Order: sequence, then C-alpha cells, then structure tokens
Amino acid sequence: MSTTTELTQAQSDYDDLRGKGLSLDLTRGKPSPAQLDLMDGLLATSLAGDWKAADGTDCRNYGGLEGLPELRSIFSEFLGVPAPQLIAADNSSLALMHDCIVHSLLSPLPGSSSRWIDGPAAFLCPVPGYDRHFSLCERFGIEMIQVPMTDEGPDMDVVEALVAEHPRVKGMWCVPKHSNPDGTSYSETTVARLAAMPTAADNFRIFWDNAYALHDLVDQPVVLADLLGASAGAGHPDRVFVFGSTSKVTLAGGGVAFFGTSPDNLAWYLKHNGMRTIGPDKLNQLRHVRFLGDADGVRQLMASHRALIGPKFDTVERILQEHLGGTGLASWSKPKGGYFVSLTVPDGCAKEIVAKAAEAGIALTPAGATHPYGDDPGDRFIRIAPTFPSIGDLEAAMVGLVTCVKLVGLSHLSEASNS
Amino acid sequence: MSTTTELTQAQSDYDDLRGKGLSLDLTRGKPSPAQLDLMDGLLATSLAGDWKAADGTDCRNYGGLEGLPELRSIFSEFLGVPAPQLIAADNSSLALMHDCIVHSLLSPLPGSSSRWIDGPAAFLCPVPGYDRHFSLCERFGIEMIQVPMTDEGPDMDVVEALVAEHPRVKGMWCVPKHSNPDGTSYSETTVARLAAMPTAADNFRIFWDNAYALHDLVDQPVVLADLLGASAGAGHPDRVFVFGSTSKVTLAGGGVAFFGTSPDNLAWYLKHNGMRTIGPDKLNQLRHVRFLGDADGVRQLMASHRALIGPKFDTVERILQEHLGGTGLASWSKPKGGYFVSLTVPDGCAKEIVAKAAEAGIALTPAGATHPYGDDPGDRFIRIAPTFPSIGDLEAAMVGLVTCVKLVGLSHLSEASNS
Repeated sequence: MSTTTELTQAQSDYDDLRGKGLSLDLTRGKPSPAQLDLMDGLLATSLAGDWKAADGTDCRNYGGLEGLPELRSIFSEFLGVPAPQLIAADNSSLALMHDCIVHSLLSPLPGSSSRWIDGPAAFLCPVPGYDRHFSLCERFGIEMIQVPMTDEGPDMDVVEALVAEHPRVKGMWCVPKHSNPDGTSYSETTVARLAAMPTAADNFRIFWDNAYALHDLVDQPVVLADLLGASAGAGHPDRVFVFGSTSKVTLAGGGVAFFGTSPDNLAWYLKHNGMRTIGPDKLNQLRHVRFLGDADGVRQLMASHRALIGPKFDTVERILQEHLGGTGLASWSKPKGGYFVSLTVPDGCAKEIVAKAAEAGIALTPAGATHPYGDDPGDRFIRIAPTFPSIGDLEAAMVGLVTCVKLVGLSHLSEASNS
Repeated sequence: MSTTTELTQAQSDYDDLRGKGLSLDLTRGKPSPAQLDLMDGLLATSLAGDWKAADGTDCRNYGGLEGLPELRSIFSEFLGVPAPQLIAADNSSLALMHDCIVHSLLSPLPGSSSRWIDGPAAFLCPVPGYDRHFSLCERFGIEMIQVPMTDEGPDMDVVEALVAEHPRVKGMWCVPKHSNPDGTSYSETTVARLAAMPTAADNFRIFWDNAYALHDLVDQPVVLADLLGASAGAGHPDRVFVFGSTSKVTLAGGGVAFFGTSPDNLAWYLKHNGMRTIGPDKLNQLRHVRFLGDADGVRQLMASHRALIGPKFDTVERILQEHLGGTGLASWSKPKGGYFVSLTVPDGCAKEIVAKAAEAGIALTPAGATHPYGDDPGDRFIRIAPTFPSIGDLEAAMVGLVTCVKLVGLSHLSEASNS
C-alpha cells in the first residue's frame, strides 16, 4: 500500500472510530475493581475486642509515630530496608515525599548546616518520568533538570557530572523498578554508581520511589540492587530516602505507605513529623497485618494481581504489535512489571494523537505529562495505563489508539514527503 | 493549725505517699479504654462488598480529596461550617494545622502577594494554652506573643492592639470551646471582636482549633458563636481556618479530622494538598458514616462519653475542694466540657510540685507546657488530664497531687515568712 492509500484508510478507520461514541479511559495507574475485590478479606476484618498490636499497644489510642513493628517487618524484605529503619505511615507515599521536601526546605538535613530554602535548589528528573514527582518540584519552586533514561536507568554519565558540579542539585527522583512510565529497572551498575558518586551539595538526597517493588509480571522477576546498603558502604549513609506503599498491593485509597532511610535521617524525619501528628492510623495497619499475615501472604496476593493484570499487558502488546509492528510509526516498552507501557511516536506527534483520541472518546494521560512542566520537548511520549479498564474496554481503547497513531503518524509522514 | 504544724503534716503525708510506690499518669488528654470500647461497633463494621459512598464512589480506589460528602454533612453542624466548605481528611487535625502553616509559609494566601516566609512571622498565643500549638510555631521559627486569657477568652484589648499594629502577626491560636487547659469558652463579644478587628497583615489567619466542639459535661452546653460567618459578615471572609476531629469522639488513633474555611481559602488549600496526596482514607470515613449514622448518632455517642468521664471530672473537683479549698494554696478551673482542669498554684511553685509528684510516681504534664517555649513566667500553671486513668487511679493520683501542692506551697509560705 502506498502512504496515500494508507492515510486514506487511516482517516476512514478514524471516522468509524469517532462514530462509535466511545467513552474509555487509559489515563491513570489505578487498580481495577476486580483487583480491589481481592481485598474483601481486609475490608471484613473486625478489630472489635481485638485491637492490640503484638507489643500490647492499644491501636485505638494516640501514639506510635513509627507505625506497627510487625507491619514494618513484613515490608522490610520487599523494600530492602532493615525494619528498625523503616516506618509505616498513612495511605500515601506521595505525602511522605512531599513532607520530606518540606522538612528539607525548612530544616537542615543531617550532615548539613543549611536548609534547601537558603539557596537555589534543583532536582534531577530522569525522563520520561512520573508527573506527580514533577508537580511537587514545581509547587515548591525547585528547578528540574532533565536526565535521559537508558535501558539501565538514568544516564549515569550525565547524573555524575551534574551532581559533582552543581551544589544546587539537592535531590533526584528515581522509580528504580518497573519505572513509571517506561518500565525500566535500574541495573546493578547504575545503583552502584548512584551510591558512590561524589556530590557538590552536602544535603543531596535520592528520592527512591520504589512504588513497584512487588509488581512483577514475569516468572523470573527483576532483582533490584540495594541502594541504601550500597550508599552506606560507599561512605554516604544518609544519601537515600526510600518510599513505598501498599496502594497497589492492598487498597489504593486506604493502604499503608512506608519510609525507609538511615538512622540519622529517620531521627530527623521523626523529630519533624512528631510535631505534625501524634501517630498514623494504627488500626488500618493492624488490619493489614491480620489480613496479609506475613511476607508469603503478600507474595500470594501479588500473584493474584498478576493473574488479573498480566492479560491486560498482553493485550496492549498484542494490539500494538499487530497494528504498529514494522510500520516505523511507533516503538513501545515491554515492561516486566509495574503499571504502565510507554509508547514512543514520531517527533511532534504525541499531543495530536492524544487530542485525536480524546475526540473519539478515549482519554489518555496528557502528552508531556512524562516530562517536567508537562513539556516533552520531542512531543513523542504517550503513557498507557492498562490496569483499570476491563479487557474489553482496553481492547477497544487500544484499537482506537493505534488508529489515531496511524492517522497522525501517516499525516506527518505525508506532509514531510510533500514539503 | 499553725503553718509549721501544717508543714510538718504535709511532709509526713508526702513521705507516706512516696512509700506507696505509685505509678500513675495524669499527663495527656487521652480517652480511656472504656471510652474506646464504645467504638466496638465501628471496629466491627465490615465494608466487604459494601464500599460505595452515597454518590457511588468506590472508596477503595484513589481520589476524593475533599472526603466523603455524607461525613462532612454530619459534622457541618457541630463545627459550624457549611458542608461545601468543610473537608474530611485523615486522623489528625494537628497535621492539618501543620500543613496550613507550611502552605502559608511557602505560598501566598488568598488576598496577599507575599508568603509568610518572606518576612518575620509571629503568632498570638493565648496562655495558658496547648503545647502542641506552641511546638509548631517553634519548629517553624515563628515568634510567639503571649496574650493572657480572661473568663471570656483571650484579652481582646491586647489582641486588637497587637494585630492592628504589627504586620508580622500572621496568625493566632484559639481553642474556642472548653479551651485546653483552662476550659474557657469564648464569649459572643470575643468572637464578634475577633471577626471585626482590623489587622496590619493582609495574610493574617485565626487557627480556630475547635477540638472540643462536642465535648460537653453539663446539661445546658455552652453555645459557641460562629466566627467563620461573623468574619464574612464583617468583611473578612478569609480570616478563619476551622479545625476539628473525631479523635475524642470515635478513635484517637484512627478518627477523621476536618478543615473548614472560606471558599477561596479552601481552593488554595486543596490546590496545595492535591500535590501532596491523591486523597484521604475514604474507607475509614465510610466506616464512620455507617457507624455514626447521623448527627443524632454523634450526640448519643457523646452522651456515653460524658457518662464515663463526667464522674472523673467530679472526682478531681471533689478532691481539690476537700484538700485545697479555702487554703489559699490553689485555685482551679471548673470546666463545662473538654478534657482538662487547670490548677493554679502560688507563683514559683508549679515546677517543684510536678517534680515532687514525679518522685512519688505520679506523672504530670511538665509545668510550663501551657506556655510558649515551655516557659510559664509565673511558674504557676499545672494541667490535669483526668480522662485516661480509672477512677481509682485518678483518686490516688489526685490525693498525691494535693499532698505535693500542700508540701511545696506551705514550704514557700514558710520561707517567705522567715525571710
């Protein structure tokens, strides 16, 4: 088929698509109702007359800033943080990241005498990345410096040069396993270099958002190297803030978030957080302990999640391959876990594709959301979030999406050849 | 009896007290286990298969920054805030106060172009007051200016003069009903003056911590005037931040906190809080709705609390009256609600009394905690928290406390007459 014929076909397919009056949503990485139904046992857990933690604490009353030790033990293994250095909080790890930024802005971190707010502050932002990380920087006026991703994580030559040279680089965002959105996991070498690199700032922290620590989609799961331990070994014990949560393990709206770091950093955090609250919701933590039981209970639950979402990732891969494979119009990630597929389209096409999809009733994460300030300079990254819709809706949305990719991609190709 | 004889008797009583080897705690305003047992129905509430809010929201998933509308409606009446201007959050109103300070430090409030951090910032602190309020100011380097309390609330002549003159006065702490620790409720006149007073700062806010809105101990409860409405009526719609929680209604460790304010302030807060989290724990809110039912359900619950704690306040009053009445060694508050009794002892005696009590195994809130920086300049306020211990323990602790008051008070009297 000639490009002209293909374009005519794509336009006709798109017109058909619009005629369908779809209303589909591929925007956010939310668990589906079927995944949440796995949590009926958690929602049915009664704590009446049974509200004591393992150490006898009355979970109904005030106190216990660190969270329940038995829950911290269960997640210690998964997050690679010794339980005494890991605390359990309320339902949002994003809130913990926010608060770590706030406390670092307003109080000196261990090892430093100055607050972030005392001078210019910048974060390294591997791209494509997570829009909510970027929003936090924007909200606090923290400059964002983009670092390209490679197959092994952020380009470490770029990272090492930036942190060594610029004392204003105070932080770095990392989603080290099944990265949002491209599914990349950081290699052992990348982790070793992050641990060892010299930094110009004495108050630099890596925000290690291990959101998908447990979210494997293959039989031989990726093993992430231990940055916290490696940093301590390299003489930088306070370099790392580890974040995690059960938002996509148990309940997105009512899970438990975790924060792990060095003993000095943890004391610093607890001191400041102890002014903010008298303690997290220990009852919700206790329900989690009762429902999950132990690390094996968590593993079994994650296998059930995989059984539900694995076929959705297969569907995305199948439709992309079937319609776009070999066309040169797109490439895409083949994640071994996590919640997203990253679709890369020809330069300058992403926004138009997302707009065309919206016109046809298919909501996608705004193009550019993968980059600081919502601005993808190449306009080529589209994030696909396949977990929430049913398989049927996902198929319809993906067929619609590839139709839009073809229409926009071929139009650009045709314009380029005519000019 | 001569003072010398009395002193000899007091010393002998104190020696007996020490000999008992007590271990009692009157430090914090915590609900007792018997109060928490009232919540068995809440702890037994199963949401399995039953996780939809009234508007159909799946409470298990992400979202809903404002909290559940049906829960906000129930508490709208009690907090005197229209439901659309009241949001429901996680378990800590202190956290909401903390975050309001953080956002005000780092972002201009509605009606102003400058952030609190751009210049010096001070809060008015009515004394005696709540130590955790003062800790927040101290943590953020906010100057604390003391204002004496009267029977009608803070001394408004002092307040009006300070806010009119000093643009650095950015905030004011108020516990307007059954104040911590002295049980004072603000009069209608005080509320009207707070609403109407001109302020030098264009970004001044009253932190209206209505922690004891529901916590009445008498048949004709105090009615608190509506500061939010009065401020709007006086042309200062954005003046007030209202805080409340169910920490002492349902569960101290797993309740729901509320924030109410003007529409403009609320939009400002939600914008910033929307960067911090994707939403509160809606499941806990839904459990509360199911358990409480409606405003009448809340009123019945508070009657049950009163039945449990009323006798404890009576015990405190009885023992103070019996042992210290007419001695001139102490005066004390007779609260109509709330969680505390404030004991006033002769100047320069409070610290020593608390120390003597500690030696005898009776833990009291540190003397000075009622004042900024833990420094009560007259050294005369002691806060009694009677709710947590059993009646038996409370009696023993109170008898011990009055023994210490007598010993220290009479010693000071004797020294003064000898010098």
